Amino acid sequence: MSTERVLAIALPDSLLIDEDNLRGKTVKIGQIARAASIFGVERIYIYRDTRQDFERDYLVAKEILQYSETPQYLRKRLISRKSDLENVGLLPPLRIPHHQVEPIPKQGEIREAALFFQSGELVADIGGREAALYSGRGQAGQRVTVKVDSARSPVKVSEIKRPEEIFWGYEVRRAPSLARFLRSLSFDLTILTSRNGEPVATKWAELSSRLRMANRTVVCFGAPDMGIDKMLQQDHNKVSDFPRAECLNLFPDQQTATVRLEEALLGTLSILNVLRRILN
Amino acid sequence: MSTERVLAIALPDSLLIDEDNLRGKTVKIGQIARAASIFGVERIYIYRDTRQDFERDYLVAKEILQYSETPQYLRKRLISRKSDLENVGLLPPLRIPHHQVEPIPKQGEIREAALFFQSGELVADIGGREAALYSGRGQAGQRVTVKVDSARSPVKVSEIKRPEEIFWGYEVRRAPSLARFLRSLSFDLTILTSRNGEPVATKWAELSSRLRMANRTVVCFGAPDMGIDKMLQQDHNKVSDFPRAECLNLFPDQQTATVRLEEALLGTLSILNVLRRILN
Repeated sequence: MSTERVLAIALPDSLLIDEDNLRGKTVKIGQIARAASIFGVERIYIYRDTRQDFERDYLVAKEILQYSETPQYLRKRLISRKSDLENVGLLPPLRIPHHQVEPIPKQGEIREAALFFQSGELVADIGGREAALYSGRGQAGQRVTVKVDSARSPVKVSEIKRPEEIFWGYEVRRAPSLARFLRSLSFDLTILTSRNGEPVATKWAELSSRLRMANRTVVCFGAPDMGIDKMLQQDHNKVSDFPRAECLNLFPDQQTATVRLEEALLGTLSILNVLRRILN
Repeated sequence: MSTERVLAIALPDSLLIDEDNLRGKTVKIGQIARAASIFGVERIYIYRDTRQDFERDYLVAKEILQYSETPQYLRKRLISRKSDLENVGLLPPLRIPHHQVEPIPKQGEIREAALFFQSGELVADIGGREAALYSGRGQAGQRVTVKVDSARSPVKVSEIKRPEEIFWGYEVRRAPSLARFLRSLSFDLTILTSRNGEPVATKWAELSSRLRMANRTVVCFGAPDMGIDKMLQQDHNKVSDFPRAECLNLFPDQQTATVRLEEALLGTLSILNVLRRILN
Protein backbone atom coordinates (compact mmCIF):
# COMPACT_ATOMS: atom_id res chain seq x y z
CA MET A 1 0.00 0.00 0.00
CA SER A 2 1.24 3.43 -0.89
CA THR A 3 1.27 6.10 1.78
CA GLU A 4 1.14 8.82 -0.83
CA ARG A 5 -1.13 11.69 0.16
CA VAL A 6 -3.62 12.48 -2.56
CA LEU A 7 -5.56 15.71 -2.70
CA ALA A 8 -8.30 15.78 -5.34
CA ILE A 9 -11.01 18.23 -6.29
CA ALA A 10 -14.29 17.61 -8.12
CA LEU A 11 -15.91 20.24 -10.30
CA PRO A 12 -19.06 19.96 -12.44
CA ASP A 13 -18.83 20.00 -16.23
CA SER A 14 -21.14 23.04 -16.08
CA LEU A 15 -18.22 24.98 -14.57
CA LEU A 16 -18.14 27.35 -17.55
CA ILE A 17 -21.88 28.04 -17.66
CA ASP A 18 -21.39 31.69 -16.64
CA GLU A 19 -18.79 32.42 -19.33
CA ASP A 20 -20.10 33.02 -22.83
CA ASN A 21 -16.87 33.22 -24.77
CA LEU A 22 -13.61 31.31 -25.04
CA ARG A 23 -11.60 34.20 -23.63
CA GLY A 24 -13.61 34.23 -20.39
CA LYS A 25 -13.56 30.44 -20.22
CA THR A 26 -9.80 30.39 -20.65
CA VAL A 27 -9.26 32.96 -17.89
CA LYS A 28 -11.53 31.02 -15.51
CA ILE A 29 -9.81 27.70 -16.23
CA GLY A 30 -6.47 29.44 -15.76
CA GLN A 31 -7.54 30.51 -12.27
CA ILE A 32 -8.65 26.96 -11.48
CA ALA A 33 -5.34 25.53 -12.70
CA ARG A 34 -3.47 28.01 -10.51
CA ALA A 35 -5.53 27.29 -7.39
CA ALA A 36 -5.08 23.54 -7.88
CA SER A 37 -1.34 23.97 -8.35
CA ILE A 38 -0.68 26.25 -5.37
CA PHE A 39 -2.06 23.58 -3.04
CA GLY A 40 -0.71 20.54 -4.85
CA VAL A 41 -4.00 19.08 -6.11
CA GLU A 42 -3.02 15.87 -7.92
CA ARG A 43 -6.35 15.07 -9.51
CA ILE A 44 -9.16 17.16 -10.95
CA TYR A 45 -12.39 15.22 -11.42
CA ILE A 46 -14.95 16.78 -13.71
CA TYR A 47 -18.33 15.27 -12.91
CA ARG A 48 -21.52 15.37 -14.94
CA ASP A 49 -24.14 18.03 -14.22
CA THR A 50 -27.15 15.97 -15.33
CA ARG A 51 -29.49 18.84 -16.10
CA GLN A 52 -28.13 19.00 -19.63
CA ASP A 53 -25.22 17.96 -21.80
CA PHE A 54 -22.08 19.96 -20.98
CA GLU A 55 -19.70 17.69 -22.90
CA ARG A 56 -18.44 20.59 -25.03
CA ASP A 57 -17.41 22.67 -22.03
CA TYR A 58 -15.93 19.60 -20.38
CA LEU A 59 -13.62 19.20 -23.37
CA VAL A 60 -12.67 22.87 -23.32
CA ALA A 61 -11.90 22.70 -19.61
CA LYS A 62 -9.94 19.48 -19.93
CA GLU A 63 -7.86 20.69 -22.85
CA ILE A 64 -6.97 24.00 -21.22
CA LEU A 65 -6.23 22.36 -17.85
CA GLN A 66 -3.97 19.82 -19.53
CA TYR A 67 -2.27 22.48 -21.63
CA SER A 68 -1.62 24.51 -18.51
CA GLU A 69 -0.15 21.53 -16.64
CA THR A 70 2.15 20.49 -19.50
CA PRO A 71 5.69 21.86 -19.09
CA GLN A 72 6.18 24.78 -21.49
CA TYR A 73 9.07 23.05 -23.28
CA LEU A 74 6.91 20.06 -24.21
CA ARG A 75 3.76 21.81 -25.38
CA LYS A 76 4.75 22.07 -29.02
CA ARG A 77 5.51 18.35 -29.25
CA LEU A 78 2.59 17.05 -27.21
CA ILE A 79 -0.34 19.33 -27.90
CA SER A 80 -1.79 19.78 -31.35
CA ARG A 81 -3.27 23.12 -32.31
CA LYS A 82 -6.94 23.26 -31.45
CA SER A 83 -9.38 26.12 -31.68
CA ASP A 84 -10.18 25.66 -27.97
CA LEU A 85 -6.60 26.66 -27.19
CA GLU A 86 -6.76 29.94 -29.10
CA ASN A 87 -6.47 32.10 -25.97
CA VAL A 88 -3.91 30.16 -23.98
CA GLY A 89 -1.70 33.25 -24.08
CA LEU A 90 -3.97 34.53 -21.28
CA LEU A 91 -3.07 31.67 -18.94
CA PRO A 92 -0.85 32.57 -16.00
CA PRO A 93 2.17 30.25 -15.76
CA LEU A 94 1.83 27.62 -13.03
CA ARG A 95 5.53 27.62 -12.07
CA ILE A 96 5.26 24.22 -10.41
CA PRO A 97 8.36 22.08 -9.82
CA HIS A 98 8.36 20.13 -13.09
CA HIS A 99 7.92 23.29 -15.18
CA GLN A 100 11.14 24.87 -13.93
CA VAL A 101 13.98 23.44 -15.95
CA GLU A 102 17.41 24.73 -16.94
CA PRO A 103 18.69 24.22 -20.50
CA ILE A 104 21.51 22.04 -19.19
CA PRO A 105 20.27 18.96 -17.31
CA LYS A 106 21.93 17.70 -14.14
CA GLN A 107 22.87 14.13 -13.32
CA GLY A 108 20.09 12.50 -11.30
CA GLU A 109 17.57 15.22 -12.12
CA ILE A 110 13.96 14.17 -12.72
CA ARG A 111 12.15 15.70 -15.67
CA GLU A 112 9.10 15.33 -17.82
CA ALA A 113 9.94 14.24 -21.34
CA ALA A 114 8.25 13.78 -24.71
CA LEU A 115 9.33 10.83 -26.83
CA PHE A 116 9.96 11.09 -30.57
CA PHE A 117 11.99 9.45 -33.33
CA GLN A 118 15.27 10.98 -34.42
CA SER A 119 17.39 9.23 -37.06
CA GLY A 120 15.40 6.06 -36.47
CA GLU A 121 15.92 6.06 -32.72
CA LEU A 122 13.39 6.76 -29.97
CA VAL A 123 14.73 9.77 -28.05
CA ALA A 124 13.44 12.07 -25.34
CA ASP A 125 12.94 15.83 -25.41
CA ILE A 126 13.74 16.95 -21.89
CA GLY A 127 13.89 20.66 -22.60
CA GLY A 128 17.65 20.56 -23.05
CA ARG A 129 19.64 21.64 -26.08
CA GLU A 130 19.84 18.12 -27.42
CA ALA A 131 17.46 15.17 -27.37
CA ALA A 132 18.41 12.52 -24.82
CA LEU A 133 18.97 8.84 -25.46
CA TYR A 134 16.01 7.12 -23.87
CA SER A 135 15.60 3.80 -22.16
CA GLY A 136 12.14 2.68 -21.13
CA ARG A 137 8.90 1.28 -22.49
CA GLY A 138 7.37 4.50 -23.83
CA GLN A 139 6.31 5.13 -27.40
CA ALA A 140 6.74 8.08 -29.73
CA GLY A 141 4.34 10.92 -28.91
CA GLN A 142 4.07 9.96 -25.25
CA ARG A 143 4.87 12.05 -22.22
CA VAL A 144 6.91 10.21 -19.62
CA THR A 145 8.85 10.97 -16.46
CA VAL A 146 12.58 10.33 -16.73
CA LYS A 147 15.70 10.52 -14.64
CA VAL A 148 18.92 11.88 -16.08
CA ASP A 149 21.47 9.03 -15.93
CA SER A 150 24.18 10.93 -17.71
CA ALA A 151 24.18 14.71 -18.11
CA ARG A 152 27.13 14.77 -20.51
CA SER A 153 26.60 14.55 -24.24
CA PRO A 154 25.10 12.26 -25.32
CA VAL A 155 22.60 12.86 -22.51
CA LYS A 156 21.02 9.60 -21.32
CA VAL A 157 17.71 9.27 -19.49
CA SER A 158 15.65 6.34 -18.26
CA GLU A 159 11.96 6.20 -17.51
CA ILE A 160 10.84 6.22 -13.88
CA LYS A 161 7.56 6.47 -12.02
CA ARG A 162 6.11 9.89 -11.24
CA PRO A 163 7.78 11.07 -8.05
CA GLU A 164 5.49 10.93 -5.02
CA GLU A 165 7.40 13.06 -2.55
CA ILE A 166 7.14 16.21 -4.69
CA PHE A 167 4.13 17.77 -6.42
CA TRP A 168 4.30 16.65 -10.04
CA GLY A 169 1.22 18.29 -11.56
CA TYR A 170 -2.37 17.17 -11.80
CA GLU A 171 -4.33 14.87 -14.03
CA VAL A 172 -7.87 15.47 -15.27
CA ARG A 173 -10.43 12.68 -14.94
CA ARG A 174 -14.01 12.33 -16.12
CA ALA A 175 -16.57 11.39 -13.47
CA PRO A 176 -20.26 10.43 -13.60
CA SER A 177 -22.98 12.47 -11.85
CA LEU A 178 -22.03 13.82 -8.42
CA ALA A 179 -24.16 11.25 -6.58
CA ARG A 180 -22.70 8.33 -8.52
CA PHE A 181 -19.23 9.78 -8.15
CA LEU A 182 -19.62 10.11 -4.37
CA ARG A 183 -20.84 6.50 -4.11
CA SER A 184 -17.88 5.19 -6.10
CA LEU A 185 -15.24 7.08 -4.12
CA SER A 186 -12.48 5.38 -2.21
CA PHE A 187 -11.33 8.54 -0.47
CA ASP A 188 -10.73 8.73 3.30
CA LEU A 189 -12.23 12.17 3.52
CA THR A 190 -14.88 13.72 1.27
CA ILE A 191 -15.68 17.40 1.69
CA LEU A 192 -18.75 18.96 0.10
CA THR A 193 -18.69 22.74 -0.09
CA SER A 194 -22.03 24.44 0.24
CA ARG A 195 -23.47 27.68 1.50
CA ASN A 196 -25.93 25.50 3.42
CA GLY A 197 -23.20 23.38 4.97
CA GLU A 198 -22.04 23.53 8.58
CA PRO A 199 -19.94 26.59 9.37
CA VAL A 200 -16.34 25.39 9.21
CA ALA A 201 -15.35 27.26 12.39
CA THR A 202 -17.75 25.25 14.56
CA LYS A 203 -16.22 21.89 13.68
CA TRP A 204 -12.69 22.91 12.90
CA ALA A 205 -11.06 20.66 15.50
CA GLU A 206 -12.62 17.47 14.15
CA LEU A 207 -12.01 18.57 10.59
CA SER A 208 -8.41 19.48 11.28
CA SER A 209 -7.71 16.06 12.70
CA ARG A 210 -9.56 14.28 9.86
CA LEU A 211 -7.53 16.30 7.34
CA ARG A 212 -4.29 15.27 9.01
CA MET A 213 -5.26 11.61 9.18
CA ALA A 214 -6.62 11.29 5.64
CA ASN A 215 -4.29 9.99 2.98
CA ARG A 216 -6.82 10.62 0.25
CA THR A 217 -9.00 13.73 0.39
CA VAL A 218 -11.45 15.00 -2.21
CA VAL A 219 -13.13 18.41 -2.11
CA CYS A 220 -16.31 18.78 -4.19
CA PHE A 221 -17.81 21.98 -5.57
CA GLY A 222 -21.20 22.82 -7.06
CA ALA A 223 -21.89 24.68 -10.30
CA PRO A 224 -21.60 28.46 -10.77
CA ASP A 225 -25.40 28.68 -10.71
CA MET A 226 -26.34 25.65 -8.61
CA GLY A 227 -25.14 24.59 -5.20
CA ILE A 228 -24.18 21.05 -4.27
CA ASP A 229 -27.50 20.51 -2.47
CA LYS A 230 -29.54 21.16 -5.61
CA MET A 231 -27.05 19.30 -7.74
CA LEU A 232 -27.72 16.19 -5.65
CA GLN A 233 -31.47 16.82 -5.59
CA GLN A 234 -31.73 16.78 -9.37
CA ASP A 235 -30.31 13.25 -9.18
CA HIS A 236 -32.87 12.28 -6.49
CA ASN A 237 -30.29 12.34 -3.72
CA LYS A 238 -29.52 14.63 -0.84
CA VAL A 239 -26.50 15.64 1.21
CA SER A 240 -27.63 13.45 4.13
CA ASP A 241 -27.43 10.39 1.86
CA PHE A 242 -23.66 10.73 2.28
CA PRO A 243 -23.24 10.78 6.06
CA ARG A 244 -19.47 10.23 5.99
CA ALA A 245 -18.95 13.35 3.86
CA GLU A 246 -18.38 16.68 5.58
CA CYS A 247 -20.68 19.34 4.14
CA LEU A 248 -19.15 22.71 4.99
CA ASN A 249 -19.81 26.39 4.54
CA LEU A 250 -16.35 27.88 4.15
CA PHE A 251 -17.46 31.46 3.51
CA PRO A 252 -19.39 32.46 6.65
CA ASP A 253 -21.09 35.87 6.32
CA GLN A 254 -20.19 36.31 2.69
CA GLN A 255 -21.12 39.83 1.58
CA THR A 256 -21.61 39.07 -2.10
CA ALA A 257 -24.75 37.29 -3.33
CA THR A 258 -22.60 34.43 -4.59
CA VAL A 259 -19.03 33.19 -4.40
CA ARG A 260 -17.81 32.22 -7.85
CA LEU A 261 -16.51 28.70 -8.44
CA GLU A 262 -12.90 29.78 -9.01
CA GLU A 263 -13.06 31.93 -5.86
CA ALA A 264 -14.60 29.13 -3.78
CA LEU A 265 -11.87 26.79 -4.98
CA LEU A 266 -8.96 29.05 -4.04
CA GLY A 267 -10.52 30.15 -0.75
CA THR A 268 -11.49 26.63 0.30
CA LEU A 269 -8.09 25.14 -0.47
CA SER A 270 -6.39 28.04 1.38
CA ILE A 271 -8.47 27.31 4.49
CA LEU A 272 -8.00 23.52 4.39
CA ASN A 273 -4.25 23.92 3.83
CA VAL A 274 -3.97 25.89 7.07
CA LEU A 275 -6.53 23.88 9.02
CA ARG A 276 -4.64 20.67 8.36
CA ARG A 277 -1.64 22.16 10.14
CA ILE A 278 -3.42 23.42 13.24
CA LEU A 279 -2.76 21.20 16.22
CA ASN A 280 -5.29 21.37 19.02
CA MET B 1 -16.50 56.26 19.83
CA SER B 2 -17.90 54.06 17.13
CA THR B 3 -17.81 50.30 17.62
CA GLU B 4 -17.94 49.74 13.89
CA ARG B 5 -15.66 46.94 12.76
CA VAL B 6 -13.38 48.02 9.97
CA LEU B 7 -11.53 45.61 7.75
CA ALA B 8 -8.98 47.23 5.45
CA ILE B 9 -6.39 45.94 3.02
CA ALA B 10 -3.23 47.61 1.74
CA LEU B 11 -1.80 46.91 -1.71
CA PRO B 12 1.21 48.50 -3.43
CA ASP B 13 0.72 50.78 -6.43
CA SER B 14 2.96 48.35 -8.32
CA LEU B 15 0.12 45.82 -8.13
CA LEU B 16 -0.23 45.76 -11.93
CA ILE B 17 3.48 45.39 -12.70
CA ASP B 18 2.97 41.87 -14.09
CA GLU B 19 0.18 42.88 -16.47
CA ASP B 20 1.23 44.56 -19.68
CA ASN B 21 -2.14 45.51 -21.12
CA LEU B 22 -5.36 47.12 -19.95
CA ARG B 23 -7.33 43.92 -20.45
CA GLY B 24 -5.12 41.98 -18.07
CA LYS B 25 -5.06 44.86 -15.61
CA THR B 26 -8.84 45.07 -15.66
CA VAL B 27 -9.25 41.34 -15.02
CA LYS B 28 -6.79 41.47 -12.12
CA ILE B 29 -8.47 44.50 -10.54
CA GLY B 30 -11.81 42.76 -11.01
CA GLN B 31 -10.53 39.80 -8.99
CA ILE B 32 -9.29 42.15 -6.26
CA ALA B 33 -12.64 43.96 -6.13
CA ARG B 34 -14.44 40.60 -5.78
CA ALA B 35 -12.13 39.33 -3.03
CA ALA B 36 -12.53 42.57 -1.09
CA SER B 37 -16.30 42.43 -1.47
CA ILE B 38 -16.81 38.78 -0.46
CA PHE B 39 -15.22 39.51 2.91
CA GLY B 40 -16.62 43.00 3.44
CA VAL B 41 -13.40 45.00 3.10
CA GLU B 42 -14.39 48.62 3.70
CA ARG B 43 -11.17 50.30 2.72
CA ILE B 44 -8.51 49.59 0.12
CA TYR B 45 -5.28 51.48 0.72
CA ILE B 46 -2.90 51.71 -2.20
CA TYR B 47 0.56 52.49 -0.89
CA ARG B 48 3.60 53.71 -2.77
CA ASP B 49 6.20 51.25 -4.00
CA THR B 50 9.18 53.62 -3.83
CA ARG B 51 11.41 51.87 -6.33
CA GLN B 52 9.79 53.88 -9.13
CA ASP B 53 6.77 55.95 -10.00
CA PHE B 54 3.66 53.80 -10.36
CA GLU B 55 1.18 56.71 -10.33
CA ARG B 56 -0.28 55.70 -13.70
CA ASP B 57 -1.16 52.18 -12.54
CA TYR B 58 -2.45 53.58 -9.26
CA LEU B 59 -4.94 55.67 -11.21
CA VAL B 60 -5.98 52.72 -13.37
CA ALA B 61 -6.51 50.56 -10.28
CA LYS B 62 -8.40 53.27 -8.42
CA GLU B 63 -10.70 54.05 -11.33
CA ILE B 64 -11.55 50.41 -12.01
CA LEU B 65 -12.02 49.63 -8.30
CA GLN B 66 -14.35 52.61 -7.92
CA TYR B 67 -16.25 51.76 -11.08
CA SER B 68 -16.74 48.23 -9.83
CA GLU B 69 -18.00 49.41 -6.42
CA THR B 70 -20.48 51.93 -7.90
CA PRO B 71 -24.00 50.51 -8.18
CA GLN B 72 -24.72 49.65 -11.82
CA TYR B 73 -27.68 52.04 -11.98
CA LEU B 74 -25.52 55.03 -11.03
CA ARG B 75 -22.50 54.43 -13.23
CA LYS B 76 -23.75 56.43 -16.19
CA ARG B 77 -24.44 59.50 -14.04
CA LEU B 78 -21.35 59.36 -11.84
CA ILE B 79 -18.54 58.04 -13.98
CA SER B 80 -17.33 59.81 -17.08
CA ARG B 81 -15.98 57.79 -19.96
CA LYS B 82 -12.28 57.25 -19.62
CA SER B 83 -9.92 55.19 -21.71
CA ASP B 84 -8.86 53.30 -18.55
CA LEU B 85 -12.39 51.95 -18.32
CA GLU B 86 -12.43 50.53 -21.84
CA ASN B 87 -12.56 46.90 -20.68
CA VAL B 88 -14.95 47.16 -17.75
CA GLY B 89 -17.22 44.71 -19.57
CA LEU B 90 -14.80 42.04 -18.30
CA LEU B 91 -15.47 42.87 -14.65
CA PRO B 92 -17.50 40.31 -12.73
CA PRO B 93 -20.45 41.93 -10.92
CA LEU B 94 -19.86 42.33 -7.18
CA ARG B 95 -23.49 41.67 -6.16
CA ILE B 96 -23.01 43.36 -2.80
CA PRO B 97 -26.04 44.62 -0.83
CA HIS B 98 -26.21 48.17 -2.21
CA HIS B 99 -25.99 46.93 -5.82
CA GLN B 100 -29.14 44.86 -5.57
CA VAL B 101 -32.10 47.15 -6.11
CA GLU B 102 -35.60 46.65 -7.44
CA PRO B 103 -37.12 49.20 -9.85
CA ILE B 104 -39.81 50.04 -7.28
CA PRO B 105 -38.40 51.36 -4.01
CA LYS B 106 -39.80 50.40 -0.62
CA GLN B 107 -40.59 52.67 2.28
CA GLY B 108 -37.65 52.80 4.69
CA GLU B 109 -35.25 51.22 2.20
CA ILE B 110 -31.66 52.52 2.11
CA ARG B 111 -30.10 53.15 -1.28
CA GLU B 112 -27.19 54.82 -2.95
CA ALA B 113 -28.25 57.82 -5.00
CA ALA B 114 -26.78 60.28 -7.48
CA LEU B 115 -27.94 63.89 -7.28
CA PHE B 116 -28.82 65.94 -10.34
CA PHE B 117 -31.00 68.87 -11.38
CA GLN B 118 -34.38 68.24 -12.96
CA SER B 119 -36.62 71.21 -13.82
CA GLY B 120 -34.53 73.39 -11.56
CA GLU B 121 -34.81 71.10 -8.56
CA LEU B 122 -32.11 68.93 -6.97
CA VAL B 123 -33.37 65.33 -7.22
CA ALA B 124 -31.96 61.89 -6.57
CA ASP B 125 -31.55 58.98 -8.97
CA ILE B 126 -32.13 55.92 -6.82
CA GLY B 127 -32.42 53.42 -9.65
CA GLY B 128 -36.21 53.68 -9.67
CA ARG B 129 -38.43 54.60 -12.59
CA GLU B 130 -38.63 58.22 -11.47
CA ALA B 131 -36.18 60.58 -9.81
CA ALA B 132 -36.89 61.10 -6.12
CA LEU B 133 -37.42 64.40 -4.32
CA TYR B 134 -34.31 64.86 -2.22
CA SER B 135 -33.73 66.44 1.13
CA GLY B 136 -30.19 66.80 2.40
CA ARG B 137 -27.01 68.80 1.95
CA GLY B 138 -25.65 67.13 -1.17
CA GLN B 139 -24.86 68.82 -4.45
CA ALA B 140 -25.50 67.91 -8.06
CA GLY B 141 -23.11 65.22 -9.33
CA GLN B 142 -22.54 63.74 -5.86
CA ARG B 143 -23.20 60.22 -4.70
CA VAL B 144 -25.02 60.03 -1.38
CA THR B 145 -26.76 57.46 0.78
CA VAL B 146 -30.48 58.04 1.22
CA LYS B 147 -33.45 56.53 2.96
CA VAL B 148 -36.79 56.24 1.21
CA ASP B 149 -39.26 58.35 3.24
CA SER B 150 -42.14 57.86 0.86
CA ALA B 151 -42.25 55.13 -1.77
CA ARG B 152 -45.36 56.47 -3.50
CA SER B 153 -45.09 58.93 -6.34
CA PRO B 154 -43.60 61.46 -5.88
CA VAL B 155 -40.93 59.30 -4.20
CA LYS B 156 -39.20 61.19 -1.38
CA VAL B 157 -35.77 60.45 0.03
CA SER B 158 -33.56 62.05 2.67
CA GLU B 159 -29.83 61.79 3.08
CA ILE B 160 -28.47 59.59 5.84
CA LYS B 161 -25.05 58.33 6.94
CA ARG B 162 -23.63 55.19 5.37
CA PRO B 163 -25.09 52.25 7.27
CA GLU B 164 -22.61 50.57 9.59
CA GLU B 165 -24.38 47.33 10.36
CA ILE B 166 -24.34 46.15 6.74
CA PHE B 167 -21.49 46.03 4.21
CA TRP B 168 -21.86 49.10 2.05
CA GLY B 169 -18.95 48.86 -0.36
CA TYR B 170 -15.34 49.93 -0.11
CA GLU B 171 -13.48 53.17 -0.58
CA VAL B 172 -10.05 53.52 -2.16
CA ARG B 173 -7.41 55.61 -0.37
CA ARG B 174 -3.91 56.67 -1.32
CA ALA B 175 -1.16 55.86 1.17
CA PRO B 176 2.55 56.78 1.40
CA SER B 177 5.32 54.16 1.36
CA LEU B 178 4.58 50.98 3.29
CA ALA B 179 6.89 51.95 6.18
CA ARG B 180 5.35 55.40 6.54
CA PHE B 181 1.89 53.94 6.17
CA LEU B 182 2.53 51.37 8.92
CA ARG B 183 3.84 54.11 11.26
CA SER B 184 0.77 56.28 10.70
CA LEU B 185 -1.76 53.52 11.26
CA SER B 186 -4.34 53.63 13.99
CA PHE B 187 -5.46 50.03 13.50
CA ASP B 188 -5.80 47.58 16.40
CA LEU B 189 -4.37 44.75 14.37
CA THR B 190 -1.92 44.96 11.48
CA ILE B 191 -1.18 41.82 9.51
CA LEU B 192 1.74 41.63 7.09
CA THR B 193 1.58 38.74 4.63
CA SER B 194 4.91 37.28 3.62
CA ARG B 195 6.36 33.99 2.55
CA ASN B 196 8.99 34.60 5.23
CA GLY B 197 6.41 35.26 7.94
CA GLU B 198 5.49 32.91 10.76
CA PRO B 199 3.39 29.94 9.65
CA VAL B 200 -0.18 30.92 10.49
CA ALA B 201 -1.00 27.48 11.92
CA THR B 202 1.58 27.80 14.71
CA LYS B 203 0.07 30.97 16.16
CA TRP B 204 -3.53 30.54 15.15
CA ALA B 205 -4.93 30.70 18.69
CA GLU B 206 -3.40 34.08 19.49
CA LEU B 207 -4.26 35.37 16.04
CA SER B 208 -7.83 34.15 16.28
CA SER B 209 -8.35 35.97 19.53
CA ARG B 210 -6.67 39.14 18.25
CA LEU B 211 -8.90 39.04 15.16
CA ARG B 212 -11.99 38.75 17.34
CA MET B 213 -10.94 41.57 19.65
CA ALA B 214 -9.80 44.02 16.97
CA ASN B 215 -12.27 46.62 15.80
CA ARG B 216 -9.95 47.85 13.11
CA THR B 217 -7.85 45.36 11.18
CA VAL B 218 -5.60 46.01 8.18
CA VAL B 219 -4.01 43.29 6.05
CA CYS B 220 -0.97 44.34 3.99
CA PHE B 221 0.36 42.69 0.83
CA GLY B 222 3.61 43.01 -1.08
CA ALA B 223 4.07 43.54 -4.82
CA PRO B 224 3.67 40.83 -7.49
CA ASP B 225 7.46 40.71 -7.83
CA MET B 226 8.60 41.84 -4.38
CA GLY B 227 7.66 40.56 -0.96
CA ILE B 228 6.82 42.76 1.99
CA ASP B 229 10.26 42.18 3.52
CA LYS B 230 12.10 43.63 0.52
CA MET B 231 9.50 46.34 0.15
CA LEU B 232 10.38 47.54 3.65
CA GLN B 233 14.12 47.08 3.06
CA GLN B 234 14.13 49.42 0.09
CA ASP B 235 12.81 52.07 2.48
CA HIS B 236 15.55 51.25 5.01
CA ASN B 237 13.16 49.47 7.33
CA LYS B 238 12.52 45.89 8.26
CA VAL B 239 9.64 43.76 9.48
CA SER B 240 11.01 43.74 13.04
CA ASP B 241 10.71 47.54 13.15
CA PHE B 242 6.98 46.91 13.51
CA PRO B 243 6.82 44.57 16.49
CA ARG B 244 3.06 44.95 17.00
CA ALA B 245 2.32 43.78 13.47
CA GLU B 246 1.80 40.07 12.83
CA CYS B 247 3.92 38.89 9.93
CA LEU B 248 2.39 35.68 8.63
CA ASN B 249 2.93 33.06 5.97
CA LEU B 250 -0.59 32.04 4.99
CA PHE B 251 0.40 29.62 2.22
CA PRO B 252 2.51 26.96 3.94
CA ASP B 253 4.12 24.50 1.51
CA GLN B 254 2.96 26.35 -1.59
CA GLN B 255 3.72 24.26 -4.68
CA THR B 256 3.99 27.13 -7.15
CA ALA B 257 7.08 29.36 -7.23
CA THR B 258 4.92 32.35 -6.32
CA VAL B 259 1.40 33.13 -5.19
CA ARG B 260 -0.04 35.97 -7.24
CA LEU B 261 -1.27 39.08 -5.45
CA GLU B 262 -4.95 38.49 -6.33
CA GLU B 263 -4.62 34.87 -5.16
CA ALA B 264 -2.89 35.86 -1.93
CA LEU B 265 -5.64 38.38 -1.24
CA LEU B 266 -8.53 35.95 -1.69
CA GLY B 267 -6.78 33.11 0.12
CA THR B 268 -5.67 35.27 3.04
CA LEU B 269 -9.08 36.84 3.57
CA SER B 270 -10.71 33.38 3.38
CA ILE B 271 -8.42 32.11 6.13
CA LEU B 272 -8.79 35.15 8.40
CA ASN B 273 -12.58 35.09 7.97
CA VAL B 274 -12.70 31.54 9.33
CA LEU B 275 -9.95 32.00 11.93
CA ARG B 276 -11.82 34.91 13.49
CA ARG B 277 -14.72 32.57 14.18
CA ILE B 278 -12.75 29.71 15.73
CA LEU B 279 -13.16 29.62 19.49
CA ASN B 280 -10.45 27.84 21.40
